[in-house]
Amino acid sequence: MSKKIPIIHSTAVVAESRLFRIEALEIEFSGGQFRQYERLARNASMGAVLVVPMLDSHTVLLVREYAAGLHRYELGLPKGKIDAGEDSLAAANRELKEEVGFGANRLSHLHTVSLAPAYLEHTIDIILAQDLYPEKLLGDEPEELEVVPWNIYQIDQLLATGECSEARSIAALYMAAEYLRKC
Amino acid sequence: MSKKIPIIHSTAVVAESRLFRIEALEIEFSGGQFRQYERLARNASMGAVLVVPMLDSHTVLLVREYAAGLHRYELGLPKGKIDAGEDSLAAANRELKEEVGFGANRLSHLHTVSLAPAYLEHTIDIILAQDLYPEKLLGDEPEELEVVPWNIYQIDQLLATGECSEARSIAALYMAAEYLRKC
Repeated sequence: MSKKIPIIHSTAVVAESRLFRIEALEIEFSGGQFRQYERLARNASMGAVLVVPMLDSHTVLLVREYAAGLHRYELGLPKGKIDAGEDSLAAANRELKEEVGFGANRLSHLHTVSLAPAYLEHTIDIILAQDLYPEKLLGDEPEELEVVPWNIYQIDQLLATGECSEARSIAALYMAAEYLRKC
Repeated sequence: MSKKIPIIHSTAVVAESRLFRIEALEIEFSGGQFRQYERLARNASMGAVLVVPMLDSHTVLLVREYAAGLHRYELGLPKGKIDAGEDSLAAANRELKEEVGFGANRLSHLHTVSLAPAYLEHTIDIILAQDLYPEKLLGDEPEELEVVPWNIYQIDQLLATGECSEARSIAALYMAAEYLRKC
């Protein structure tokens, strides 16, 4: 059973950039305690998608992409923002074409995950893409992404490379592997 | 093989709050493309830990905690910041005592994950806690956290509750379950 949700008494934008907005919240918990919180919102965001593209029953297509937050290349799942007028399945198919060079005849929503719900409002839809066909769309990537096929049932070995750290990609791979095992 | 890492030509703080700092980066990719990126850093952070506390061979102890980013209660793993003078194992044991009311005789580092490496520099150490004993420390939580025992081999059912969305917790549960299966 959920507790009574705390009351947000005030919200103020304390800092803002092109992409982000930091809000300060004054929050009262049901027991009477007050706290100052900060949370981060993304400006003009319509959500995002993370795609699990299956080339065959066990081969997932990963991409190696520069990650500015860590200033290194990261091996993970293709992803991107949902554009205006798109639903998450259409966005997943477009990102797949742009980043991996495939479209999918079958797209399934597996789950929606959050990143750090304590201070981020961001969520991302995890979309399983199956029955792929070659199709390349030009995206806004600053360089061609390297596509790396991987056995989805060998997630341990992927983690051991030290190149895959993103919790969203790791969670999505485990979820997809469990889903596929049951199919 | 990794590509040649892009060059960061300039870094400027474009917005800052009590907890966060937003940086604008000018980045040159090895192919000659330039891009403006924004990344978010956490002020005065020494890292964070996420704890997977095992009460017995299959029971993990989850906590139900208010998540301001989503303004709802979230069911997930206990976590917190590493304090000055602590390593991640000591931080995990302290957070476990504060949030769950147990200490652990056995603490193992499973993996370090990132949240959104494209624009966040945050990472979190995942610590498996075993051989628990009751010990309560007073933390800075605004209210007592509800502790919810869960079968770690029933992650599907946990996701189906709709209360557990955090990718880090989901990834950590799958990783711990896989690790424990092999023990």
